[in-house]
Amino acid sequence: MADKPKKPQKLKARLPRGLEDRGPTAIAATRRMTETIREVFERYGFEPVETPAMEYTDALGKFLPDQDRPNEGVFSFQDDDEQWISLRYDLTAPLARYVAENFDALPKPYRSYRAGYVFRNEKPGPGRFRQFMQFDADTVGSASPAADAEMCMMASDTMEALGIPRGSYVVKVNNRKVLDGVMDTIGLGGIENAGRRLTVLRAIDKADKFEWIEIEKLLGSGRRDESGDFTKGAELSPAQIEAVRQSLQFKIEFEWMDDGGWHERIQGELPKQFINVEGEALMRTGLFELGEISKVLKAAGYEEDRVRIDSSVVRGLEYYTGAVFEVELLLDAKDEKGRSVRFGSVGGGGRYDGLVSRFREEPVPATGFSIGVSRLQAALRMVSRIDTAPHPGPVVVTVFDQERIADYQRMVTLLRDNGIRAELYLGSGKFGAQMKYADKRNSPCVVIQGSDEKSRGIVLIKDCFQGAKNAAITDREEYKAAQAKVQYAVLEEELLDEVREVLTRHDVTWG
Amino acid sequence: MADKPKKPQKLKARLPRGLEDRGPTAIAATRRMTETIREVFERYGFEPVETPAMEYTDALGKFLPDQDRPNEGVFSFQDDDEQWISLRYDLTAPLARYVAENFDALPKPYRSYRAGYVFRNEKPGPGRFRQFMQFDADTVGSASPAADAEMCMMASDTMEALGIPRGSYVVKVNNRKVLDGVMDTIGLGGIENAGRRLTVLRAIDKADKFEWIEIEKLLGSGRRDESGDFTKGAELSPAQIEAVRQSLQFKIEFEWMDDGGWHERIQGELPKQFINVEGEALMRTGLFELGEISKVLKAAGYEEDRVRIDSSVVRGLEYYTGAVFEVELLLDAKDEKGRSVRFGSVGGGGRYDGLVSRFREEPVPATGFSIGVSRLQAALRMVSRIDTAPHPGPVVVTVFDQERIADYQRMVTLLRDNGIRAELYLGSGKFGAQMKYADKRNSPCVVIQGSDEKSRGIVLIKDCFQGAKNAAITDREEYKAAQAKVQYAVLEEELLDEVREVLTRHDVTWG
Repeated sequence: MADKPKKPQKLKARLPRGLEDRGPTAIAATRRMTETIREVFERYGFEPVETPAMEYTDALGKFLPDQDRPNEGVFSFQDDDEQWISLRYDLTAPLARYVAENFDALPKPYRSYRAGYVFRNEKPGPGRFRQFMQFDADTVGSASPAADAEMCMMASDTMEALGIPRGSYVVKVNNRKVLDGVMDTIGLGGIENAGRRLTVLRAIDKADKFEWIEIEKLLGSGRRDESGDFTKGAELSPAQIEAVRQSLQFKIEFEWMDDGGWHERIQGELPKQFINVEGEALMRTGLFELGEISKVLKAAGYEEDRVRIDSSVVRGLEYYTGAVFEVELLLDAKDEKGRSVRFGSVGGGGRYDGLVSRFREEPVPATGFSIGVSRLQAALRMVSRIDTAPHPGPVVVTVFDQERIADYQRMVTLLRDNGIRAELYLGSGKFGAQMKYADKRNSPCVVIQGSDEKSRGIVLIKDCFQGAKNAAITDREEYKAAQAKVQYAVLEEELLDEVREVLTRHDVTWG
Repeated sequence: MADKPKKPQKLKARLPRGLEDRGPTAIAATRRMTETIREVFERYGFEPVETPAMEYTDALGKFLPDQDRPNEGVFSFQDDDEQWISLRYDLTAPLARYVAENFDALPKPYRSYRAGYVFRNEKPGPGRFRQFMQFDADTVGSASPAADAEMCMMASDTMEALGIPRGSYVVKVNNRKVLDGVMDTIGLGGIENAGRRLTVLRAIDKADKFEWIEIEKLLGSGRRDESGDFTKGAELSPAQIEAVRQSLQFKIEFEWMDDGGWHERIQGELPKQFINVEGEALMRTGLFELGEISKVLKAAGYEEDRVRIDSSVVRGLEYYTGAVFEVELLLDAKDEKGRSVRFGSVGGGGRYDGLVSRFREEPVPATGFSIGVSRLQAALRMVSRIDTAPHPGPVVVTVFDQERIADYQRMVTLLRDNGIRAELYLGSGKFGAQMKYADKRNSPCVVIQGSDEKSRGIVLIKDCFQGAKNAAITDREEYKAAQAKVQYAVLEEELLDEVREVLTRHDVTWG
């Protein structure tokens, strides 16, 4: 390439929007989080299964809310046999494919979990990523509301295992059948209204983010946001909008009562425009299922402070057919400008009885729950619930004489063979640069051997952590005395013991 | 959807070729492997960093050997601003982008590691996957052969940490500069010959898989494989082919000698057609660097049984500029038809001094090593070095009376709260189906409470593992006595203690 006389234009090193690199503290935090979640999910009897990051586009289906995005929010490309392949946008659609493909071999109900990155071609924006991690559990082959209840309990247990105290999160439950019943009541039933129904559901989904006046716009003629982008509305009439508003008031009627009484209470108190109309039966089925879920939750001791029925919960994905859940963080946080931050949902899920049946003749009821690991991690970092202190780096053996690099390597090997993280300085910098390097790596100590030390059979140890502490000393004599403990000579054969000593002195453990 | 009278055609549940699902034992094995690799890499002083699965296509560059594949073997799609984005085909190209983008903030040399899935749009075939996991370490900003030597040592340590005994693997080292010198000698230097040079290198790369006669075809007019596919050759003349063949004989000259002598030996014994010709200087530089690497390896005690110089090592990726390494498994394995299986390379890497400089004005030398986790795992599974026994499943609490599901849930919660993996049977099957389910889940025991037991305040415990053992008993009386220990009643309040007892009896620990 050096043959060409003109200097080639250099490429710009940059990432596409909505993607991010992750450093040591973020990676360590994710590892701890996924280990914790895994423990809880396994205690609940779920076993791991993983599918690849890509699937045939038709097998995934298009259930995302981003209908105005390229390929409806999914990254897709054509295979060499012309078939379309897409990156998974969640872990549920691929699981449905997996279960359908391996149906006869799997135990039923089939209870599994998985963690992995998913990809959405979302409109980029602050905190909106196009690649993020989810951790899912699913029970496929059970129509029982107890399976839905279990998802809520597990969501709650997971939050607490992750260090979020009771009261600082809530698992909210609703049932799509109730919402679908409302749709029927206002004349939005039938396959021909599927699109508008979804628009209404997604408007309701925003009820915890927007004022009602904004929701009204989304239910009516549409809404223009601050950036000028226009979201088409559901074109409901004022009377239809009023019925939707009333249906959201249900939540005040949901209270935890003794078994049975709970049912009758809600069922008895349906607002009167929902009685003796189309949709009433579906609403009542949804309410009955919510009652069954609440019975199990109560029996297991998950009272209202952990799991709560909330009629505004919708979930944006199109494939839900029954119970829907959402985990919300109630932690109080401020952004860098001191404004209160709403974290919103850090996990959710629901019943998707139709998803596996897309591939099979028999009905296959299923329910699942997904933790947004990336989103939860971002939230916990914001409230300082995640350790972001830099970890100790390796012991650095400096190089004074390139000819003697094999000798220095021997010292490194000795330390490594004894389980100590260690490395040879491999750059071309002089002593100052090597010390700066060790500092940047947060090295607990540095090993030094010039020709003078070599001839005397000694090595110098520099205790970097002690050095950092000494910087705070103001008294000159005291500082001098303290510095003597920072850099000192030991015999070559004492190297290993002395490095161990330094590590013990500063409680260095590597995570 | 039920409105439509005609039955819709069901989708076929299937994965695109070259992709696979992974079950519990494979996932557990990967987790153990990556944990082990991580420990070794961290002991060497590398710190984690992760980049996303996709990058701008131009930032990744096209360095794969699959030039006859769509997009040269890379999965690509256009972003909504028309820019092309690709899935990463390795972990090195994205790291180069990361280092270039964050150059000033990073310690130099920058030593990092990462694990992740990479994607190649390869021609599908047995054992060739389009998604697989790699685990990489890289030292960026060091031109020192000691950095290359370290990669070889770490590769060796990693293999042994993974349970592959010394002698059952070998790390082979070569230097692209030697090969590039040979190219110059036979008149294939210069940017205008880059394509043919690569074809020659890739032919040499196959020297451990094919007979020399096949390599000759690849160096000459081309080769047709058994499937009828034709690979274009490098169109070398017979004299050029002979020179390449001779250059591969170097390997017999490489021997481990005392420092210094090693250098002179190889440098003194260059076959005479490589002396006083163009390319000699480059070859000698490559040989000198190999000598420097061998000095460090020897000092650290990595004698020939772990790391070996081998002039046939090339590596298929285009971006290597100096030392190249490859880890080969020497384990003896047979496939299902009893034929010997060659695993080939399970890891490799090399020096890529030009990759970061694509983005920056200054030269940024770099070297790295990548373990093919998926490929190594497949190899270890074939020689039974990976535990594939099913793990114990959860304790299953059966359901006799749907009305009492809340009671059964209480038992499950009690077990879970005490750290025992447990679940409620959530299907709709009768007793027989529930027992079959527990069997399929490999449950250590099952908890049963019908109305009769309930009224007497007891529960039945079925010890499934004992039951499985009893199946081997042939004596009728003995069997009867043994079966009494398989299913028995305990008081409700003894449930937890008794389940613990069963778990202890069978040494059940969950991984």
